Parts: sequence; structure tokens; C-alpha cells
Amino acid sequence: MRFAELWSGLEPIGRCARGGGYRRYSWTPQDSQCRAWFTEQAQARGLAVTADRNGNLWAWWGEPGPGAVVTGSHLDSVPDGGAFDGPLGIVSAFAAVDLLRERGAEPVKPVAVTAFIEEEGARFGVACLGTRLLTGAVTPDQARSLTDDAGMSFADAMAGAGLDPDGIGADDDLVANIGAFVELHVEQGRALAPLGHAVGIGESIWPHGRWRLDFTGVADHAGTAQLADRRDPMLAYASAVLAARRAASEHGTLATFGKVIAEPGGSNGVPAAVHAWLDARAAQEQALEQTVSAVCAEAEKAAAEQGVSLRVRQESATPVVRFDRGLRERVSAVLGDVPVLATGAGHDAGVLAARVPVAMLFVRNPTGVSHSPAEHADLADCEAGVLALAAVLEELACR
Amino acid sequence: MRFAELWSGLEPIGRCARGGGYRRYSWTPQDSQCRAWFTEQAQARGLAVTADRNGNLWAWWGEPGPGAVVTGSHLDSVPDGGAFDGPLGIVSAFAAVDLLRERGAEPVKPVAVTAFIEEEGARFGVACLGTRLLTGAVTPDQARSLTDDAGMSFADAMAGAGLDPDGIGADDDLVANIGAFVELHVEQGRALAPLGHAVGIGESIWPHGRWRLDFTGVADHAGTAQLADRRDPMLAYASAVLAARRAASEHGTLATFGKVIAEPGGSNGVPAAVHAWLDARAAQEQALEQTVSAVCAEAEKAAAEQGVSLRVRQESATPVVRFDRGLRERVSAVLGDVPVLATGAGHDAGVLAARVPVAMLFVRNPTGVSHSPAEHADLADCEAGVLALAAVLEELACR
Repeated sequence: MRFAELWSGLEPIGRCARGGGYRRYSWTPQDSQCRAWFTEQAQARGLAVTADRNGNLWAWWGEPGPGAVVTGSHLDSVPDGGAFDGPLGIVSAFAAVDLLRERGAEPVKPVAVTAFIEEEGARFGVACLGTRLLTGAVTPDQARSLTDDAGMSFADAMAGAGLDPDGIGADDDLVANIGAFVELHVEQGRALAPLGHAVGIGESIWPHGRWRLDFTGVADHAGTAQLADRRDPMLAYASAVLAARRAASEHGTLATFGKVIAEPGGSNGVPAAVHAWLDARAAQEQALEQTVSAVCAEAEKAAAEQGVSLRVRQESATPVVRFDRGLRERVSAVLGDVPVLATGAGHDAGVLAARVPVAMLFVRNPTGVSHSPAEHADLADCEAGVLALAAVLEELACR
Repeated sequence: MRFAELWSGLEPIGRCARGGGYRRYSWTPQDSQCRAWFTEQAQARGLAVTADRNGNLWAWWGEPGPGAVVTGSHLDSVPDGGAFDGPLGIVSAFAAVDLLRERGAEPVKPVAVTAFIEEEGARFGVACLGTRLLTGAVTPDQARSLTDDAGMSFADAMAGAGLDPDGIGADDDLVANIGAFVELHVEQGRALAPLGHAVGIGESIWPHGRWRLDFTGVADHAGTAQLADRRDPMLAYASAVLAARRAASEHGTLATFGKVIAEPGGSNGVPAAVHAWLDARAAQEQALEQTVSAVCAEAEKAAAEQGVSLRVRQESATPVVRFDRGLRERVSAVLGDVPVLATGAGHDAGVLAARVPVAMLFVRNPTGVSHSPAEHADLADCEAGVLALAAVLEELACR
């Protein structure tokens, strides 16, 4: 098992000296280094590497064609993210290919290892952008006009990384060739540890979405504007934050404000505006709607009390995703007594599930912490994940 | 009265096309343009211009020397600030000099018009930095090591603007030459409008300060971390924001959170930390202390409830400033029936008051809004301010 060696080659890229978190944003030098690592690994194995029209990388074992068994994940990270979210699936895929070859397995279907771009949406705001473009869920014009926090467009950033943004868009032929997609991912949350299992099988992804709340008040001087004269959007935002926790508790859902921008942001002024992003997820669509409605209603009420206006826009919406039942039963049969889990996290597997049979494998996360430098998986569990993935690929590609 | 013409020369510099607010930050190209405007205006009047060792500009009418009557304000702005806060005092000073000359006034004391650097502290975080350096309230090493949000030091920024940061520091000789300092400023808040007066006289500046609150939790995935497992600093911050308003209402004070930074700031993650700045001001020291204590106590309690740590540091503290009584009575005698006001806003006049007799004149702000593009003063009121300033300068310099 060469997992640890493979892992150590990718691990230093984009890791911050301070805090140990990763910043691997799409089309940055760190991203280019990750992509170069992928290409080297593929070439070292004699796998033909291609970038599709959206920049997603494909390393082919065998001739590309119909019925391909595809496995992979993503290399990009959230700000100060962990080492495992994404990369674990790609390192495990290469390790599984090695394992199958050592065993003398001979695939009768093409096998591909993939790295999808901008899965986190950390730079351009739309999660799973690589698979959304591939499947046509996002149009080329929509993608090209996305901008990062510095105002640079996706198109310019992609061109800066040496790829052609004019060519992006859906690739129905490539999608049609995927017979099955399997994504191995570090567990996010902590379901496997209490069950005593190193590996789990995905059943579904919770419906989830992101809402942008723009509270607009009136900028004023913190030292002179009387309380009664103020129209302070920060107060309305604070009420919305507390309302989100209350609503999530009440409905058994998740609701989070992780990003907030105060404008103009001077410490000695009442802000003119506060822009905030609500992330909400639930096991059922109805509970999700109830949660978001409750947060928005309380935010509206608080805004009205402060003389502040509120505009709410849904930036993304992902309905519940149920992975292909037949494929899951086949994976379960191969892996035996393995827990089947739902997750609140979105994945490229969730986007691809709209078009092709998809399965997910989760590797135990002992603390459950993710999107954090503290994210962790034990080496033995990672190796168990490789064994499971190899067994699944062998079942799907060699029979 | 050439006020409008003078005003129109400075008005476009550093004004944002979007929103109409000003961004005139120290040592930027916009700041250099403002400084060039000052120098041109001084030279057009035959006033000798010098930059003191801290980069504050002085335009001298008459030979620099003891007993000087100094008037001026600042050219820098808060982010998206108004046109009047600072510049009104400098434009009015030049206009008052013109008026005195038209009247044939002959000063028997030196008169100077000044522009002090970094009054707002918008770039380097310390308000009134020019006068604090001049009077020794901030040491050269403290100032040089201040950094802006992009990490550039005050020293490097100053050098980049063509000035020598090695030479900054207290200038006791220059301060000793100031016989009186008069700062004209747009009113911040709305006291004059209900009284029906265009001009007011400053009596004191409220004690005020800035406190930095660092809430540190644990970054996690917004889609998978269960509520009970979270240590979310945003919730504790939100409680602090609402506590600040409650405490200010209760104690008759002002308390504001205008600046907040969430780390890492991804919309799909529980933040690792929230950094927030509390601005608090009160007519009495005791009420100020009670307000800040109440906010900190509630912030501590909320942090403990969320499993989040809180560190509070006082970044600045300004005790009450009472302007020189004798000078104020002289100004009142010249201006007649004019309201006398306290203000919650800090000024260079407040810093200089520790060393020299200081007076302030306020020009009516019909809405009270300041630190905002909506800040306004009517032309007729600005002209009344020039007349008042000229009368005061004549009283102080020509008799």
C-alpha cells in the first residue's frame, strides 16, 4: 500500500505556515501545482491525462469510451481548509489503481481518475462548478462572469492559468461515456466513529442552499449619531444570526452564518450595509424551508425595527440527492457490513447523480471536524478506504 | 466670499463614482492630490508652505514664531466618508485668510493654516496620528510599525509618498510656538439645527475609546457539524452586538460595532474566529465604563455558552477633553449669541488641547449624518462659518 507515500507528495502544496490550513483556490499557483502533481502521478502510471473543456482532469486507464468506471474528487479547498476534503478521494483513486494492478486485475471497461475544478466554490462562489459546467447545470456565460472577491472573473482567472475559457460548457458525449461514478471522501460529521467502522457508504445528500441577506442602513458617525436617529444594519444582522440558531434547533436542521461583510467597515462608524450569507441544510425539504422562512421572518422584523432595508436572494439551491439504489446495493454487497449514511455536505457526486449512476464512500473522521485545519483521518482508515475503493472498482470495471 | 470656488477645487479628489463617498487615505495618490491642492492654495496666497517632520502641512502668513494663531483640520477621510469632515476646516481657513486680507487686517502674530495627517485613522488605525506624533502622544516607533489592512507599514507608506519616516516624532519647538489653535469642523450629530444656529462653539469632547473583541471558536463544515458539537464565534459576536445597543440605551451613551471580520469567512463553514471592534462614547467617564463593562460581561457570557474564547483589548482611550475656558469666552464674545456644544467625536483639537489653548467652531449639519456620503452642510452655513472663523482669527491675531 503506497498511500502514505502518495499522500506526502501532495500534502505540502498550498498549506499555510500559520495555522496549517490549506488555501488551494482555483486557477492560482497552488492550484496549478496540485494539477501538475495529478498529471505526474497519472503519467508515472502510464495513464493518459486530458483536461476536458472545463479544465477537469481525467487520467484514463484504458481507452476512453462507453461504460467507463470513473472515480475521483477535487483538489481545491475552502479558506484554511483541511488536507483530506477532496484530495483523499484522488490519492485513494491512484492508490486503488496501483492495488488493482498489483493484483493483476484486468478491467474490461475503461477506468478514469478525475479531479474536478472549483468544487468548494471558495473562489467564485458556485460549488461543484466543474461538474455543473460538465453537465450543463451552469451555462458557460454564467460561469465566465462569476468573479472572485478581488473582482477577477472566472474567465480571466482560467485564462491566466493557461486554459481557454471560451471553450467551457456541457460535454454530453463525455458524460454519456460514464457508466458509474464513485467518489471517496473524508467523512464530514461524525457518524462512523460511534459505529466503529472505518468506511461508510453514501445514501443521499441533504437538500441545502445558500441565501444572501443584504441589510442596508445609513452610514453615520459612531461618536455623534444618537441611538434614536440610527439606522444600523449590524443590529438587524445580529438578530438574524441568533434567529438562525434558534430555527435550526427547533427544526432539527443546520443554519450557519460564516461570511459577513460590513460596509464601509470603519470601526468608528455605523455601517452603511451588512452583507451576510446563510447556509442552511436539512434532512427534509420541508424542514429546510421552515428554517429559512423563520430566519428571514426574524431578519425582516429586526430590519424593520431598526429602519433598515433587507433584500434576500437565494444564491444556490440543491434539492435532496438520492444515490442510485442498484449501484449502492452492488457496493454494499462487495463491502459487506458497512453503514449507509446521509450527509449534509454537497459533492460533485451529487451533481453527477442527476445524469449517471453514482456511489459514495466515506472514510471515518474521528472528530467530525471538516473545513478546518483540524480535519483528520487516521492512516489506517485511509488505507481501509483504498481497499474498499479498489474492491468497488474491481467489481464495476473487471466483471 | 470665494468659499464655493475654493471648495470646488478640492471636491472631486478621491470621490468614488459609485455612492459619491470619499476615500482619501493617508499616503495614497488621492492624499497626494489633496496635499498638492493645499500647497497650490497656499502658494497662490503667498503663504510659505512647510511639511513638519510628521508630514503635517503648515501654510504661514507671516514669519513662523511664538504666539502663532493656528487654524486648520485634516484632508483624510473615513472609508466612503463625506466631503465636509476635515476639508471644511481647511477650505474655511484659506477663505478666512482671504477675507481678512480683503478687509486690510494686519496680524500682529503669525497665522498658520494646517492640514494634519491621518486624523481618521482609517488607514493605520490610530486616529489623530499627525497631532499625536507632533505632541509626542505616540512615539515614532509606535507609528512606524502601524500597518494597514494590506500589511503595509506606516513607514513604508510614508516613504512611498516621498516623505522620510525616519524623521517623525514630537516637535516641542513647533508646539511651543502655537499661541492658540482653532479648528472649524462640520457638526457631527444634529444639535444646531433645532436651535436655529448656523455656527456653534465647542465646549468639550466626550471620553471615548475603541475595544477589540476576538472571539475564537473552531472552524467546521456548515453542512455536517451538529449544533451541539459547534463552537461558533459568530453567535457570541451577535450577542455582543445586541448587548452594546442595550447597554448604550440603558446608560445614555453610544456603543457601536462598525467593523467585523469573520475568519476564514467561507459561506459554507462555521467560522474559526470573529474579530470585532466596539466604539463607545459617553458624556461621563463613569457611564462609559459602565457601558463597556456591560458589553464585555454579556460577550463573555455568550462566549462561554458557545464554548468560544474571548479576548478583549482596549485599542484606544481618550479621556474627556475640555477646551480652554478663557479662549472659549473670548470666542463667544466675538461671535455673540452662539450655542456652546459638547461632541462625541474626536478631533486633532482634542489632542492639541493637552498642550495649547484650543477652540472649536462647528458648522450646522442639517441631518446630523457624518462619516457617510450623505454628510452635508448648506453653502450659506459654510459661508457663515468662514465669517465666524475670520472674526475669531482677527480677534486672536490682529490685536
